[in-house]
Order: sequence, then C-alpha cells, then structure tokens
Amino acid sequence: MPSPRRLRLGAFMRPVSIHTAAWRYPGAFPDANFNLDHLVRFARTLEAARFDAFFMADHQAVLNMPIQALKRSATTTSFDPLTLLPALAMVTERLGLIATASSTYNEPWHVARKFASLDHISQGRAGWNVVTSGNPNEAMNFGREEHWEHAARYRRAHEFIDVVKGLWDSWADDAFIRDVESGTYFDPDKMHVLDHKGEHFSVRGPLNVARPIQGHPVIVQAGASDDGRQLAAETAEVIFAAGGTIEIARAFYADVKARTEKAGRDPAHLLVLPGAFVIVGESEEEAREKRAILDSGVHYDSAVASLSVALGTDASVFDPDAPLPEDIPETNASKSGRERAIGLARRENLTVRQLAQRLGGYAGAAMAGTPARIADEMQEWLETGACDGFNLMFPYLPGGLDDFASKVIPELQRRGLHRTEYEGRTLRDNLGLPRPGNRFFPG
Amino acid sequence: MPSPRRLRLGAFMRPVSIHTAAWRYPGAFPDANFNLDHLVRFARTLEAARFDAFFMADHQAVLNMPIQALKRSATTTSFDPLTLLPALAMVTERLGLIATASSTYNEPWHVARKFASLDHISQGRAGWNVVTSGNPNEAMNFGREEHWEHAARYRRAHEFIDVVKGLWDSWADDAFIRDVESGTYFDPDKMHVLDHKGEHFSVRGPLNVARPIQGHPVIVQAGASDDGRQLAAETAEVIFAAGGTIEIARAFYADVKARTEKAGRDPAHLLVLPGAFVIVGESEEEAREKRAILDSGVHYDSAVASLSVALGTDASVFDPDAPLPEDIPETNASKSGRERAIGLARRENLTVRQLAQRLGGYAGAAMAGTPARIADEMQEWLETGACDGFNLMFPYLPGGLDDFASKVIPELQRRGLHRTEYEGRTLRDNLGLPRPGNRFFPG
Repeated sequence: MPSPRRLRLGAFMRPVSIHTAAWRYPGAFPDANFNLDHLVRFARTLEAARFDAFFMADHQAVLNMPIQALKRSATTTSFDPLTLLPALAMVTERLGLIATASSTYNEPWHVARKFASLDHISQGRAGWNVVTSGNPNEAMNFGREEHWEHAARYRRAHEFIDVVKGLWDSWADDAFIRDVESGTYFDPDKMHVLDHKGEHFSVRGPLNVARPIQGHPVIVQAGASDDGRQLAAETAEVIFAAGGTIEIARAFYADVKARTEKAGRDPAHLLVLPGAFVIVGESEEEAREKRAILDSGVHYDSAVASLSVALGTDASVFDPDAPLPEDIPETNASKSGRERAIGLARRENLTVRQLAQRLGGYAGAAMAGTPARIADEMQEWLETGACDGFNLMFPYLPGGLDDFASKVIPELQRRGLHRTEYEGRTLRDNLGLPRPGNRFFPG
Repeated sequence: MPSPRRLRLGAFMRPVSIHTAAWRYPGAFPDANFNLDHLVRFARTLEAARFDAFFMADHQAVLNMPIQALKRSATTTSFDPLTLLPALAMVTERLGLIATASSTYNEPWHVARKFASLDHISQGRAGWNVVTSGNPNEAMNFGREEHWEHAARYRRAHEFIDVVKGLWDSWADDAFIRDVESGTYFDPDKMHVLDHKGEHFSVRGPLNVARPIQGHPVIVQAGASDDGRQLAAETAEVIFAAGGTIEIARAFYADVKARTEKAGRDPAHLLVLPGAFVIVGESEEEAREKRAILDSGVHYDSAVASLSVALGTDASVFDPDAPLPEDIPETNASKSGRERAIGLARRENLTVRQLAQRLGGYAGAAMAGTPARIADEMQEWLETGACDGFNLMFPYLPGGLDDFASKVIPELQRRGLHRTEYEGRTLRDNLGLPRPGNRFFPG
C-alpha cells in the first residue's frame, strides 16, 4: 500500500503569535517576538518536530493602527528576518529558513546576495517570501508619499524575481576550482555577466556570491489577488495561502494548480500551504477554554473597534455582556464580514464582548480541539485537495507551539501524514522540490 | 605606576587575507573567504585572543579587474557581511562585529533596522562601517551608468547617518514595559516619529526595532580624503586608517583628532586604527622567508601588470630574474608610486619578479619579524601618537592569524599593551566609547 501523501508544515513565526493578546496568556513569554533566546528555543522545537520551515513575515514599518491599539500590540517591533535567520541557522541543522523581503522597497542585488549568503550559511535551507508591500506606511519610510499602485507593484515584482534568479545563476555550480597548483581560483568560462536592462532595473552582475547550494533559494509568495495568483503560478514554489473554509481553500488550490500547469510548470512544484491557527486541548472543552482565556486578553477598546468595523456600525453602544442585538442595521460595510461576525456570535453563543475580543484577537479561521480532531481536520484538507500542508500559527508561545509539537505532531506521524525524520539536507529536498538548473550553464 | 595605554585591535576579515596569493600558501585554506566553518574558527581564535572586533569590508560588485587577474583572486566572492555576522554572533560572546554598508546604494531604513537587529542579537556588539562606495562597478549593479561624484556622495552620507541615528532613537530605552496586567506593551510617550525630510531622504519612522543595546552601534569609517576625514571627525567613533609610514600616520592622527575637537567632540571618542599587515616569524629570517613564499604565489602576469602601473612603463620587457634596470624613464605616472617601487627594490635587493610579486600581492606597508619586533613596532606607534591600535591584516589563513594570536598577543599582554580579559559585554564597553544618549528622550 502506498504511504499517504504527507503534509508540509511551515511555522508562521513573525509575529510568533498573530493573536494580539498572545503575550498576556498565562505562562506566555511577553517578549517572545523580540528575544533571541526564546526564538532559538522555538526554532529547536520546530526542528525536533520535523517542521519544514520557520517562516518570517515582515513589514518595513510600525504597523499602521491607532496608538491606543498599537500600544497593546506585541508585534510593534521585531528583528529584521534576514538578520535573525542566519543566527537561527547556527542552532538548527535541517529546518528551512524563510524570510520575507519586499520587491518594492529593495534592490534585486541586495536580495540576491543576502539570500544566496543565507543559503550558503545554512547549507541550503533558505527561502525567499516575495511580497510587494501593500502597506502604505512602508512607502513613507522609503521617501514616497504614495504607495505604488497594485499592477505596477506586480510588474516590478516579475522583473525583480527574474533579475534575482539571473544573479543567482552568475556562476556555474562548478565555477570555483581553486587550483592551488596553477593559481586559478575560478574558471572564467563559468562566470556570466547578466547585463540586465529592463523597465524597472538595470543590473550588470555578476553576483559576488557563488551559486546558492539549492541553485535558487525556494521562492514563496502569499498573494491572493488575481495578479498575485498569476505571479505565483509563474514563479513561486510555495504559496502561503489565506485560511478560510475548506471549500474556499479547495477552489483556491484548484485555481493556482491550474494556472501553474497553464504556465507550463508541473503543478506539484507549487505547494499550497494555507495558514492554520491551532489551539490544542486535551478535550474539546479545554481547547474552548484556552481560546476564551486568550481572547479575554484583548482590551475592550481595541476589540470593540474591530467589531464596529466588521458590523459597519458603532458597537460600543451595545451592552458588552449581552448577546449581540437582533436588529443590526445593514450598512455600506462588507456584507460578508458582517454576516461572518453575526454568524459566529450565534453559532458559539458569544456575548458582544466575546465576539469583539475574538475579532480583535485573531479573526481568521482556527482549528481548535483535541490532537485527534486537529489531525482529522488536517487530513481532510490534505486528502480532498484543499492544501499540500499548512503554515501554522500558534495561539501563544511557548505553550501553543509546545502543545502542537508534543501532541498533534505524534498523531500526524502515527497516521503517516508527517515525517519522523528529514528526507534530505536542504529545504528543497524536504519539500520535494527540484533543484533549478542554471539559465546560463545548462546541463 | 599607571598602566600603559592599551591597543585596540580589530581584524580585517574580508577578504580574510588581503594578499592575492594567500589562498596558495602552503597549508592555507583556499576557500577561507567563503567557508562558514573556517570563518567560525577564525572568529573564535580572535575572541580567544581578546580582539576588539571582526571587521568585514565589502563591495557590492565583483571587483573590477581584467579577467586574467580576476580568475586568480580568492576574493571574487564573499558572504554578505550583514548575513554572516549574525551567524558569527552565535559562536562568540564578546567579539565586536563590524559590517560595512554603503550609504550610496542603500536606504537608511534598511541599514538602521539591520544594524539594530544585529546589535540586539549579539547583545551589543555591532558596528557599522559607513562607506560611500567609490567603485564604479557598484553603480552598474544599482541601475546607474555613472557613479555619484565624490562631494555628492559625502553630502548624502552625512544625511544618511543622521537619519539612521534618528531611527535608532525612535524608542526610549525603557519604552517597552510589557505590563501583562494592564495590557500595555509599550508607553506611547516613549515612541518618537522621526518625520525626516531632507535633501536626499524622507523617512517617517519610527523604526520597528527597539533601541539598540548600545544605544547606537559603533560608527566606523575609512575615508582618508578631506571630505572623509571631516565626516569621520563629525560622526565616526573608529577610523580604519590606511597604513603607510609612522610619520604619515602621526600626521593623520593629529589631523583627525584636531578636527574631532574642533567639531565639539572629545578626541578620545574617535579611535584611529591603521591597517597593519603582519607576518610573524620565529626569527627575522623566517619572517622574510614566509613573505617570499607568499609573494611567489602571485602569478607573474598579474604581478608585472601591477609593476607596470607603479613604474608607469611596460615592465614585461625587463628580465624577470635580474635586478630592476637603473634607467627607468620618468613618465606621467604617480611619482611617489614610482619612487616607492624603486626604493623597495633597492632596499630589499629584489629581482624584477620579486618586486612585481610584492606589488601584485599586497603593496601596503607590513610589520614582519619576530613577535618582539612586531610588538616593539606597535608599541612605538601607540606611544608616539600614530594610532590607538590597529586593524590587523593576516598574510594567509589560518597560519598567519594563528601565529599572531599565539605569539604576538602574549607578548603584547606581557607588556600591558593588550587586555587579557574583556572589560565589558559590548563593543562600546571594550573600546572605551560612551553609550550615546537618545536625541529625543534625553536623560
């Protein structure tokens, strides 16, 4: 009997918890996002649990929110991903290291060089999450009053990725012969001068780093728009997809795999990993309690602001400790957001405060329950064409990660859905992705 | 009796040896510049020898030289300094970590964030060597056909440094209170929005990293021009000065210390560290032999090209194994370079080949001899106002570094000229530099 297909598991580690009140959870490390010793501990736990990768999202700005909400957020500051990951490379051996770098506020040379360096330093474990920087506050840190418009950002991203890959191919894999006897350090026929001149960039090359161990670090993207899906289908190897219902995930999965095939690529070489916020309990009841404690840490001022946005009406006039009123007026706000909020309150029988805190903490879909139930859910997603694995988000640290590693991972391994040992040395080996050939030195 | 003033010792580690034939020396690591295990070993050796810092120079290009010379150079490729140093931070505890980053082909935001992250990750050991990128090949990797002219680069550098320091001061040192009880992560009165708008940059801030452990990473510069000296006097804390004779060094030292005082700063807070290429022998004779073996690795094609440049005439017509002819015509070439080359040949009784190989290997001044003689020379430089210490360059690796660490360091320690234990935890503590106050949150 063939072994079942396995889940690929990334860990979304910046912020270490996406839940805004994670740092207040009993026993949590309040400075988890910004304390190297804790980050080392998390990376080692992830490697012991045989995760594919540690994934660092990023913003080039303090997040744009009202100061009364901002001052309550543990995610205001964080280490630069490309500075942190080389450090974590030294305390791990197989865990992939994926850093976000924007194609909008960077130069291709810097991105090519830093990821190539990380790939060498980590012996082939680097991945680049390409983002096009949708946050208008970032523009203001780079001398622009206005942000680039969406289509222009994506045109630039296409060319940016092309230049970076071209720079990675500056040298044949065997260019550096280091022949002490003849005094020849490299074979000049195995160096390529890129000489790129395009719409956005002109970059001569060659890159002053040898070809990366993986050929190219793994290309990751997270775009969900039409432009984003198309860019991923043409250039990405991993998509960090939004969560949501399994039906939405299946449609997304089918769409990007079809686009990938249409772009002339093997759809198996684009892995789709939706985000999954996981809360593990010994019982369903314990998981619910953990979530309630977690949500209760969201300050009501922030919470009610989130609820007001979702409903499109001022929720601060409602009684926080009563159920959501029946007669909430329709407004210009997103109808689906409004219905999702109302549906959630009814389904889980939440008070206004509980609903507001849920939305203000982490509004996305969650898998909460016993290890068996979470494994069931993951298995269903994998086996019904909704994903190739997950990018996991932990509710609080270290507890939420430790629970997942010690309880859910063994259950997934028992079912043959997760590796017990790494298949290879590099991130590509472990993800089952091919090593790209060199554009200029084929064969 | 007061203890003598101590030397500050940096190690110039990119390239790990500046000598172009270092990789061919018997027993050398040919891939020393680009092999993490070796770099880790070097960093540990430097820390055991109580060096102040590991110093990474850098270029954002493959060096501009003819391919016949380039293919013989071990320094074609190297890791990005800001990617390597976080890795080395994990295998050292007190060694300073200085990375070069250009103010011409970077954005202040990225530089501020990366060095602040490195400072946190290394617990206060980061230094930023600010360069203005004089290499025209770098321009072509960043979309410019022509390089910025000198004065414009320095105006930009002034503003760049000012913005970076402003971003480092985005948060008071005690801004992050992380009060779990009240749910307040930081005190909003202790966050500053920079809102810089200048000639070259407009940067809003605040930086999304807490204030660096050192307040600001240590600012290092290497400019020797009038603009460079002035920038250093106003903004730098360490100058990596060119080598040369002790007389030239004294004049340079006096000049930059006077400029620093004139700029309203304490001259003791700008340390002058000339480069010193050191070859250690058990005897003077052994040191000379080591140097001869090292130079003999320089390919004659490259060597004679260097000699031709120095003399301003085609040296390939000379008999390589004869002394330099007496009647070398005067040309438009630099008179001082010509005289230096001729003087060197006469003084050391070198053949044309030996002279050419010396110039093609490492043309700068060297300290070669027994440990006692090198210590004598360093002591004279320190005690006669020529330097505050040195930025050491090793002739080949690991041997040249190991010799210095095991033989010269103990001699310097015996004389009280070098520490036997680190004075403090941070690079500033060890260099004796004050921690800068916060521009926006004084006192």
